[in-house]
Amino acid sequence: MDLASFLAEERERIDGALDRLLPAADAWPGRLHEAMRYAVFGGGKRVRPVLARAACRAAGGDAESILESVCALEMVHTYSLIHDDLPALDDDTLRRGRATVHVAFDEALAILAGDALLTEAFVVLGRFPDGHAFASRRADACRVVAEAIGSRGMVGGQVEDLEATRAAPDGDRLRRIHGAKTGALLGAAAELGALLAGASAGSRAAFALFGRRLGLLFQVVDDILDATGSAASLGKSPGKDAAAGKLTYPAVYGLDATRRERDALAGSLGEEAQRLEGGEGTLSALVAFVARRDR
Amino acid sequence: MDLASFLAEERERIDGALDRLLPAADAWPGRLHEAMRYAVFGGGKRVRPVLARAACRAAGGDAESILESVCALEMVHTYSLIHDDLPALDDDTLRRGRATVHVAFDEALAILAGDALLTEAFVVLGRFPDGHAFASRRADACRVVAEAIGSRGMVGGQVEDLEATRAAPDGDRLRRIHGAKTGALLGAAAELGALLAGASAGSRAAFALFGRRLGLLFQVVDDILDATGSAASLGKSPGKDAAAGKLTYPAVYGLDATRRERDALAGSLGEEAQRLEGGEGTLSALVAFVARRDR
Repeated sequence: MDLASFLAEERERIDGALDRLLPAADAWPGRLHEAMRYAVFGGGKRVRPVLARAACRAAGGDAESILESVCALEMVHTYSLIHDDLPALDDDTLRRGRATVHVAFDEALAILAGDALLTEAFVVLGRFPDGHAFASRRADACRVVAEAIGSRGMVGGQVEDLEATRAAPDGDRLRRIHGAKTGALLGAAAELGALLAGASAGSRAAFALFGRRLGLLFQVVDDILDATGSAASLGKSPGKDAAAGKLTYPAVYGLDATRRERDALAGSLGEEAQRLEGGEGTLSALVAFVARRDR
Repeated sequence: MDLASFLAEERERIDGALDRLLPAADAWPGRLHEAMRYAVFGGGKRVRPVLARAACRAAGGDAESILESVCALEMVHTYSLIHDDLPALDDDTLRRGRATVHVAFDEALAILAGDALLTEAFVVLGRFPDGHAFASRRADACRVVAEAIGSRGMVGGQVEDLEATRAAPDGDRLRRIHGAKTGALLGAAAELGALLAGASAGSRAAFALFGRRLGLLFQVVDDILDATGSAASLGKSPGKDAAAGKLTYPAVYGLDATRRERDALAGSLGEEAQRLEGGEGTLSALVAFVARRDR
């Protein structure tokens, strides 16, 4: 199967599971569930759940048995986008070519829909895969994901991102921000797949590191796209980060050096993927997708 | 030991554990951790953790072994207050006699400090009590708490509370809002104590129901205090709910009927507490405290 078909099939499975797991739009309170679904079904690439399933396969697990669990990663990712877009934070009105949640609904509902999606992620992680035999893995899953996305992880990265606006170029600070904002959740996604597959602590750590480095690649590509893409291809305004005075790779290192960094990272991640899955499997496919994506 | 000393000792133990569990104020990112600590150590009554420990004792468990776990309830409660106070929601500037988080810090930090506290609760629930023997209870704990505070529970109640502003008096709607906003988390607190004690499903359900009804009593008393208390005793502006057109018990039933409801509820909860703990123990003490509180 080619890469595009593989990813399309993965996304379809994940979207189907998300649809089953999220409360119906007409269940009380309807407006809230509408807002949650509007945000979740907004054209996301589902990179985090796909990564978790690929890691699960590479660690010798059954990716089908973790279909529900990995949806928690997409709920977390969606919550983080809703809150990042709020007027008090990045004040974005467009996301994937559509109005952001606080524009399409209102600010209160955007805050609460984000809160509810974050919470729902832990309903899912606490519940799946079910059965007493998996209880210990479920508890570990809650902890691994929560540690990655809390004040010392994803939320902390968002705080420093806001503080660093219009700050002097600083490569260490840039890597710290992106490591926390993007890398932590991708690291947790890869580790989640491995831990739900029953991997050892050492193996889990190797997957977590792979995920964090894939997050770095993801962010480097994101910064290149922000500097070079068009609104039509991106579904959001290009050049917005630069205009807002955000720290980005091109702002610190220039565009040429950033492209070389992308290629070097993609190369070494491709090799690491092959080591982790013993050949070219779905982890390798994901590295290629992240490196080459145009939105 | 009298009630006041018992509660003071409980609060001291819980505050000590919260202090150990929360990241230090000088740990990266400092501003965020300062905001989280400012909100958590803001004079809260710690009703939810005290309830969970009382339920644990009543169910035959060791309340000391769940000291860390119950702190998650206070983190969740604090997050909900921070977000409820935001300008886009209730727009409150005063809480327990101090500036609310978005006033003392800023709006972005208030949103993110709430997010981080909610997340930290699941770090704690996924981690404590540690040991493989408790893994199944930890996974259940994550699920029970998350289900209570998500879109069909606490967050849903907040959405309907906002929608019901300036709505016609409606007792059913009032009970649905308070049941979700306040009752769900108190129900989860009582159930958490019982489940961590290893109680059966039937016993867990009885504790959950007790907690939800205690939440109703809590809210009835809150509404009476809002209608009759002074700013000095409450640490917030009295009459604010009425002025904002919120649905309250006095607004729907009048003050006299609300006081009779409080007394009837307190009486029946006192009896239920004695049944659950086989005599007058800490659950009974908590009912008396909630019924008689003046702030």
